[in-house]
Amino acid sequence: MTQDPEKLRQTLISWFAESRKRILAEMAKPLDVARKSNRNDLVTNVDKGNQQFLIDHIKADYPTARIIGEEGRAHDDTDISGLVFFVDPIDGTMNFVKQKAHFAVMIGIYRDGQPVVGAIMDVMRNEVLSGGPEIPVTFAGQTLAKLPDLPLKDGLLGVTGPMTIKNRLHLGEIALASSGPRMSGSAGMEFIEIALGRQLGYVSYLQPWDVAAGMAITKGMGVQFSREDGSPIDLRQPGVVVAATPQAHQTILTMMAGR
Amino acid sequence: MTQDPEKLRQTLISWFAESRKRILAEMAKPLDVARKSNRNDLVTNVDKGNQQFLIDHIKADYPTARIIGEEGRAHDDTDISGLVFFVDPIDGTMNFVKQKAHFAVMIGIYRDGQPVVGAIMDVMRNEVLSGGPEIPVTFAGQTLAKLPDLPLKDGLLGVTGPMTIKNRLHLGEIALASSGPRMSGSAGMEFIEIALGRQLGYVSYLQPWDVAAGMAITKGMGVQFSREDGSPIDLRQPGVVVAATPQAHQTILTMMAGR
Repeated sequence: MTQDPEKLRQTLISWFAESRKRILAEMAKPLDVARKSNRNDLVTNVDKGNQQFLIDHIKADYPTARIIGEEGRAHDDTDISGLVFFVDPIDGTMNFVKQKAHFAVMIGIYRDGQPVVGAIMDVMRNEVLSGGPEIPVTFAGQTLAKLPDLPLKDGLLGVTGPMTIKNRLHLGEIALASSGPRMSGSAGMEFIEIALGRQLGYVSYLQPWDVAAGMAITKGMGVQFSREDGSPIDLRQPGVVVAATPQAHQTILTMMAGR
Repeated sequence: MTQDPEKLRQTLISWFAESRKRILAEMAKPLDVARKSNRNDLVTNVDKGNQQFLIDHIKADYPTARIIGEEGRAHDDTDISGLVFFVDPIDGTMNFVKQKAHFAVMIGIYRDGQPVVGAIMDVMRNEVLSGGPEIPVTFAGQTLAKLPDLPLKDGLLGVTGPMTIKNRLHLGEIALASSGPRMSGSAGMEFIEIALGRQLGYVSYLQPWDVAAGMAITKGMGVQFSREDGSPIDLRQPGVVVAATPQAHQTILTMMAGR
């Protein structure tokens, strides 16, 4: 199958459309919710079913590609050479369970660790953000412009609850140094806000499938990505992600280092 | 003019439709932004223009009513006897300025301090939440059901950034005791989430016009309102607002008291 980024984008969008119908149909039935690592780390039958649906499509069209996904499979697959699909079947599972809104389906495609294309679907709003380094970024069919390089104090910052409230890595202070913190509970929703220019960044502790799509889409728009120490994001493992405009990114790293 | 709650609702909705057109037209022009009490307390020409537009309508139709609004007028009017309109012409001004989304127009109508009707418009989504103690609550034309009495641990809690990050009144700990904190930057957006059953509550420091509409709408749905010490909300002054399901409300007050 093709590895052309624009055609890959169209493939993802067509899978998402079918995936969305399945999710909405499942939402009409009682939900089966289980806990994973702690009381706020949930998985549902819909996460698992949608992961399997997406994996089946990937395996049928790209039999030699690697798949690294949130639920049920390939957690220990840390080889990211060749073509790799990072799959998050339901991003923001807590929102999915408690709100029936504000959750996403995300796929990021990388080749030898380099981004090719990413796609994020706001399921309930039926809006898809997609793009990559070699293709335009679009949202709900509209092409998006590059992002202005705002300093931290002049924009809103998406942050995660526990890290911010506990002021880990000074994230509470960093949030207060922005125009204001925002918390959505979904990495996918955060990257949509960033791409639309509504937030200058997002800081959280993320799994590879939480960040892969957003990084593939927004890096070329002018968003810088790193770990807390400035090192590049290694998609073989979870860790802190600092995604922000260059000016804000520098300020955040400086504050995280306690300087 | 009529004081029938259902007709008052229709009046508010018709004013909002006209107000929305004016706001969208103003948004096409350069914005004039000024700071009020601090760098994150903003007011724009659109706030002021829309306040005046709404005041003109209120004065024409209800010449003897009192008006308590955010911008430019009646700040010191602390008599809330008779018919009172609490007006927030742009709720979430920071979102309006930085995001061009996630902001609201809100009006709460009270008689002798008791709620009659409230209306909150998500301007960009063109969705209105409205209702009161004697009329159904509707969102975008659909009637909403009463809310289940969830305990704090089983639902998401909307909170404000500084209070939460600084753990004032233990709000950081309270947020972490819920299923997760959410921050939207707009009281109006928070009350829409509560009415839709997506959050079990909201805790913030609010002005009378920030809470009047949301309280008029959601109190009858089963949401309890008080100050941090359990005393009723006095709409003559700003203060901490704890709005939550009865079970969560009790837990929040207990935690705020440090017990």
